[in-house]
Amino acid sequence: MHRKQIRLNAFDMNCVGHIQHGLWTHPRDRSASYNTLGYWQNLARIAERGLFDGIFLADIVGVYDVYKDSAAPSIIDAVQIPVNDPLLLVPAMAAVTRHVGFGVTCNLTYEQPYLLARRMSTLDHLTNGRIGWNIVTGYLDSAARGMGRAAQPDHDDRYDVADEYLELAYKLWEGSWEDDAVLRDKDNRVYARPEKIHRIRHHGRHYQLDAIHLSEPSPQRTPVLYQAGASTRGRRFAATHAECIFVNAANKPLVTSIVADIRAQAAAQGRDPADILMFAGRTVVVGRTHAEAEAKFRDYQAHASAEGGLAHFSSSIGVDLSRYELDEPIRHDKNNANNSALEAITSRSKEPWTVRRIINEMGLGGRQKPFVGSAEEVADDMIAWVEETGIDGFNLSRTVTPECLEDFVELVVPILQERGVYKRDYAEGTLREKLFGPGRARLAASHPAARQRRQGRDQAVAGVLADAVT
Amino acid sequence: MHRKQIRLNAFDMNCVGHIQHGLWTHPRDRSASYNTLGYWQNLARIAERGLFDGIFLADIVGVYDVYKDSAAPSIIDAVQIPVNDPLLLVPAMAAVTRHVGFGVTCNLTYEQPYLLARRMSTLDHLTNGRIGWNIVTGYLDSAARGMGRAAQPDHDDRYDVADEYLELAYKLWEGSWEDDAVLRDKDNRVYARPEKIHRIRHHGRHYQLDAIHLSEPSPQRTPVLYQAGASTRGRRFAATHAECIFVNAANKPLVTSIVADIRAQAAAQGRDPADILMFAGRTVVVGRTHAEAEAKFRDYQAHASAEGGLAHFSSSIGVDLSRYELDEPIRHDKNNANNSALEAITSRSKEPWTVRRIINEMGLGGRQKPFVGSAEEVADDMIAWVEETGIDGFNLSRTVTPECLEDFVELVVPILQERGVYKRDYAEGTLREKLFGPGRARLAASHPAARQRRQGRDQAVAGVLADAVT
Repeated sequence: MHRKQIRLNAFDMNCVGHIQHGLWTHPRDRSASYNTLGYWQNLARIAERGLFDGIFLADIVGVYDVYKDSAAPSIIDAVQIPVNDPLLLVPAMAAVTRHVGFGVTCNLTYEQPYLLARRMSTLDHLTNGRIGWNIVTGYLDSAARGMGRAAQPDHDDRYDVADEYLELAYKLWEGSWEDDAVLRDKDNRVYARPEKIHRIRHHGRHYQLDAIHLSEPSPQRTPVLYQAGASTRGRRFAATHAECIFVNAANKPLVTSIVADIRAQAAAQGRDPADILMFAGRTVVVGRTHAEAEAKFRDYQAHASAEGGLAHFSSSIGVDLSRYELDEPIRHDKNNANNSALEAITSRSKEPWTVRRIINEMGLGGRQKPFVGSAEEVADDMIAWVEETGIDGFNLSRTVTPECLEDFVELVVPILQERGVYKRDYAEGTLREKLFGPGRARLAASHPAARQRRQGRDQAVAGVLADAVT
Repeated sequence: MHRKQIRLNAFDMNCVGHIQHGLWTHPRDRSASYNTLGYWQNLARIAERGLFDGIFLADIVGVYDVYKDSAAPSIIDAVQIPVNDPLLLVPAMAAVTRHVGFGVTCNLTYEQPYLLARRMSTLDHLTNGRIGWNIVTGYLDSAARGMGRAAQPDHDDRYDVADEYLELAYKLWEGSWEDDAVLRDKDNRVYARPEKIHRIRHHGRHYQLDAIHLSEPSPQRTPVLYQAGASTRGRRFAATHAECIFVNAANKPLVTSIVADIRAQAAAQGRDPADILMFAGRTVVVGRTHAEAEAKFRDYQAHASAEGGLAHFSSSIGVDLSRYELDEPIRHDKNNANNSALEAITSRSKEPWTVRRIINEMGLGGRQKPFVGSAEEVADDMIAWVEETGIDGFNLSRTVTPECLEDFVELVVPILQERGVYKRDYAEGTLREKLFGPGRARLAASHPAARQRRQGRDQAVAGVLADAVT
């Protein structure tokens, strides 16, 4: 019997402390080398050795300063600060790999669509079709202040802006250059045909543009679209646009309901639910035996920082957790801009959430307790998650790096392969083809981006077509 | 006698046709592979073999659509369209080199200072101090329309905005993190010290920001600053900020006067004129003999595109040259937004400029006629330029690529070395140290960026200093 194949992303970030805080202090941890090319090229090689589908790079523009009303705890523990630009890692990692994909977070709120579209096209060219874009709209007021605004726009408004942003990006990626626009015909001295290149005239509520896309068609055109919104509005956005969705919830019933809800919403919009892959966040500490894994976990744990975790978590939920006693129930403030994140954790259980409980559940100073076990136990756990919740795979957070990824590749991947739930080789083609099958380099016809295509619709010649560039 | 050392940049762009148009049709030209990593890594290796100081990457966001009132001529000849993002080439090139620097064009008009500063810091980290920023404010209305504006801001206004932009960028690069802010102290579990990291509060005419810089200090902090403005306002800006200046003028007297003027202006502002290096644009076709070079030139010329050159040039000067008869003098329109570029060419001589004359002077379909000769002749020409005009080196444009760079490295570099005007090995250190000497990783104290430094000025502890992040 053919079993559902598990998809894997290495979840990382161009910084020292990503999710599991304090572990940079472990003697074997190399995350403080995040600012060197060798560090990232090594990571990419390990991921490709393990046949990972992708390296998923988070990003944040801003600093976590809600806890103790200060950025100091984040700075001391390197909690996503300093944080360097993630896109610039991709070319170096792509140069030493052939297959692994790259899902990169870019906050659209502060980037011109005309330029962001070009960046993504450039990377799709340079990686030969291995780029994905994790669409975020940002949630930190500290980011807004970096851009000269007092605060973030409202949560739902940000998604309305994002909808229009994507519509415009699709026009540039899918609608500006026809498939046969580029000839590269040296003999007849025609690089590209103007009559096959269309000016995008977009006059929307939030964006104005009157230009052709600056890049010629890349292997995937639109990058593979990742998204991670858990709120009602975020899920609607994901169901509309996303191809890979990061479901950030800790227990199976919640993940199951989110997965079912998003697939139903996608279907209601005319998309094939199979065109969406869902990834659960997971942190794994694996050993050759259960005892070895437990010992490793205790060793890691001795280097973890609960303070760093609270600094991160306070910004995520918009609540300064330093104002609470250890066992005081955390209150739900209706005016909190990050309500949805707080809701997502508080709705997990009937028990009241307290700082003590948060620290206990984090385990390693991060936001999620690791799964600790032998390779077989880890594999069983992953398979159970996939079978019981309907997810397709995992974003694996790092602990002590890069050994955590090496351990996983060496120990868990062979077991997953034995169990028939993990590929033994990469498929050929672009990232989208690897994820969705041969012939799927481009977005499906049922995706809203496809509406922006022109091929076969208006094949008019130059001078006739009003929006051809001549 | 120690002779003045010649500095060299390979001048290139993430596109097919850069300066010398039509040459992509030459059988040996590889510029249509601009969208692959291997093409750029090969170029970087050749440049480093030739001990080039830098690879200078131009950029344009927009399309040349003045000629024939259409983008079609540019598209047919691939005249800087398609054009991909240049910054994304740097990590891949840096990964296969150790010394060569990278000067990359970024248009500040459409980039948030908070994000651009982080991009540059990221690259300075990843390249280990080999990044430079070519500061441009853009000149194309077609770029403005890509960003939802009707036209570019006025020329001089753009430089006022740029002055403030740089002030803000200096604050982030030089003033946010003190030199000893980052400890990476695993034992005491302190990555960085909050009391050594300062919030930048900038409330200017054009920009608002209230944030710490997202990146920790990189080897050079501020990237090496390149600039190319030739106008009066542009020269003032260059004299204030730039360390490497691209002087784009075709004859020695004009270059001599620009060089002298900029050095005088820099001195008047308290900067050491020796802290500025000036580069002339130059295109070279070299052979083992003069006859071989001439034959090569004729072969290249047969593939050049005058039409492509006119398309490029029409946008540069803001005049649709298709409206002129071949021998009709080109008129000077006082309302032309690109007046300074037109002035720069028309002031070169008393003879009236005509389309025929432009085509003749271009030689290879570009904007500048190549220098054609044997390696000795090329070396003599370069030395004469340096000695007579006071420039420090050259930005060498490509013709048929990469063979033009290979030819130069193989044939001309050894002659320049024999003549004692070119290094036989790289100096150690960052790009700025390679250009200005040991101990010069950071900008000189006389540079305006240095005013934004805090070290040794306010060593207050956390909680006392109002702008420390605690």
